[in-house]
Amino acid sequence: MTTSKQLFTHISSEGQLSISLNEVEVAQPKPHQVVVRIEAAPINPSDMWPMFGPANLAEAKLNDDKAQLTAPVHERLLQSVRTRLDQTLPIGNEGAGIVVAAGDSPEAQALLGKTVGVLSGAMYAEYICVPVQACIAHNEGVTPKQAASSFVNPLTALSMVENMRLEGHKAIVHTAAASSLGQMLQRICNDEDIPLINIVRNKEQEDILKAIGAKYICNSSDENFRADLYKAIDETGATLCFDAIGGGEIASHVLTAMELSGTKEITGFNTYGSEANKQVYVYGGLDMSPTTLNRAYGMTWSVSGWLLNRFLARLEPKRVGELYQKIANEINTTFTSTYTDEISLADVMDPATILKYNAKKTGSKFLVNPTK
Amino acid sequence: MTTSKQLFTHISSEGQLSISLNEVEVAQPKPHQVVVRIEAAPINPSDMWPMFGPANLAEAKLNDDKAQLTAPVHERLLQSVRTRLDQTLPIGNEGAGIVVAAGDSPEAQALLGKTVGVLSGAMYAEYICVPVQACIAHNEGVTPKQAASSFVNPLTALSMVENMRLEGHKAIVHTAAASSLGQMLQRICNDEDIPLINIVRNKEQEDILKAIGAKYICNSSDENFRADLYKAIDETGATLCFDAIGGGEIASHVLTAMELSGTKEITGFNTYGSEANKQVYVYGGLDMSPTTLNRAYGMTWSVSGWLLNRFLARLEPKRVGELYQKIANEINTTFTSTYTDEISLADVMDPATILKYNAKKTGSKFLVNPTK
Repeated sequence: MTTSKQLFTHISSEGQLSISLNEVEVAQPKPHQVVVRIEAAPINPSDMWPMFGPANLAEAKLNDDKAQLTAPVHERLLQSVRTRLDQTLPIGNEGAGIVVAAGDSPEAQALLGKTVGVLSGAMYAEYICVPVQACIAHNEGVTPKQAASSFVNPLTALSMVENMRLEGHKAIVHTAAASSLGQMLQRICNDEDIPLINIVRNKEQEDILKAIGAKYICNSSDENFRADLYKAIDETGATLCFDAIGGGEIASHVLTAMELSGTKEITGFNTYGSEANKQVYVYGGLDMSPTTLNRAYGMTWSVSGWLLNRFLARLEPKRVGELYQKIANEINTTFTSTYTDEISLADVMDPATILKYNAKKTGSKFLVNPTK
Repeated sequence: MTTSKQLFTHISSEGQLSISLNEVEVAQPKPHQVVVRIEAAPINPSDMWPMFGPANLAEAKLNDDKAQLTAPVHERLLQSVRTRLDQTLPIGNEGAGIVVAAGDSPEAQALLGKTVGVLSGAMYAEYICVPVQACIAHNEGVTPKQAASSFVNPLTALSMVENMRLEGHKAIVHTAAASSLGQMLQRICNDEDIPLINIVRNKEQEDILKAIGAKYICNSSDENFRADLYKAIDETGATLCFDAIGGGEIASHVLTAMELSGTKEITGFNTYGSEANKQVYVYGGLDMSPTTLNRAYGMTWSVSGWLLNRFLARLEPKRVGELYQKIANEINTTFTSTYTDEISLADVMDPATILKYNAKKTGSKFLVNPTK
């Protein structure tokens, strides 16, 4: 177990992306480290940009020995990845496995043999040596596959609710709401009686959310979408939105509905709009086109980027520990994830497979199993 | 002095704007109130929307007796002024005059005979009764004309600097920077050694700012604008922008330059961009077209509305008092304003004059003198 197969990404300043499966040494664990045999690592939307950058995946090709995938990056797009050019970098944000070796500290030793969820950025590998702090220890009987998505989606969903409370909002609007993350958020909101307005774009997504007890669902493909959205926002008093889409007018539509609700009883000039801060946090970029804001919502609004790690830094470490424990306790209920495909490390480089997992289709979710 | 001529605005639900010059009673001052004979009230960009809403001013007409101006409001625009329909409302955000009567309290009595700047929303009038708290008492020898713009521009410029400090930024980017407000901000920044990056759109505006000692001026009409902007932002470390324009891509260009500067020494993925919060506050709407954000600046950015009164509410009352005193002491230096035209209350309703003061041209500034 001194070496491990691991996937790496590289973009050259000449404009070529390479994904390679390399054999690397596994480090000996220091006192507060453990070595994890990785058995399950999801392919999340947030893995796509580190893996591929702006490469043209339609032209991706496997080398003859199938140990390297290459794809061209257009010269004018190289600027967007300038900080990483000519560097060989690991991939795979999160995953889970079994602790097979541990450093001398009691905290590390306590994890021996256990299933842990890990956040490391280098999870598309057979083995990894990580600090104990990068792990969530799971309860007896939880499998690596069940624990594979312990961090990104569960912590994001929980943090949205923490963020709501921290900034004094009383309801949440969520876009692209039928995602795995959206389903977790709905379950949390069900448990804690938080009004959640789910924006989806088709009937199938509506059905996914209805099945888990969603009360407010607005379908952006419906003719009455904006009226429905207004009604839900007015009924709940929502002034906070988490937007996974980013591009287009959805953030602006949400703010407009919040403003209409917030000013419905005002008389007089109302030159500057409603007093409550109306906040949209853009946490994803499913639509990479520009965000268009019509600013028809007075002067008290904000559209901001949102990043899990930077939000977690605003919480007390004790509170973060409580969230970890909640994730471990509810990994098979609130935070359950389902996967449609389970693939090997080598499969990650298969051009046809890439096109599938890069499509980010609702309901389709890939799991990498490095033991395959 | 029991009655006063005063301008009022009215938009009917049938879609007609009316501006009228009416005779109204002046209230007797209560203990903490004073009556001010208004001698000078500026026409600020922030007065335009309350006065005219979305009326089509190209079709404005004076009635035969010249006591009322009317203009049509297109039906589809009535929604944007729904809270004020069918109400007769006063206009004129700020101005200055002489205190001619005062309530019994020592604070009110102390103002008798003095020049005061007033913030009231009803300053296009001969007389007004206001609370002492709505006044800035000026020093001996200051005329109402010199004191006319004591609130909106001086407090906004001072608040931008307060805001910068409160949120830990070290420099400011300002758009439409050759305005009266922009010049005040430059003078404050000169005094306090704060790097200020002025964005203007022509040579004349550059010259205005150069003449008062501006170091960083970026002309958006120049071919090298974005390179110049980057250089200035990189040199100053600016992560805060106050934007008077609102529409178009300027906010996005500023954020892009901040991001490029913030990540110039980073290596590796840089998936989520620079760590510093990059903040644009939109405080005006010189361009009413949508704001377009390309989001090429990682996940730590924010574009927000900004409103003077809501910002001032974040400061200690003591600090606000200090700002008032600074304004009184520096009304003829840091906070000096110049006016190109002085008009009567009746002139405010003249269709040709309206087109001039509504043009918001740099260098052109109108003052209403109700004693004319």
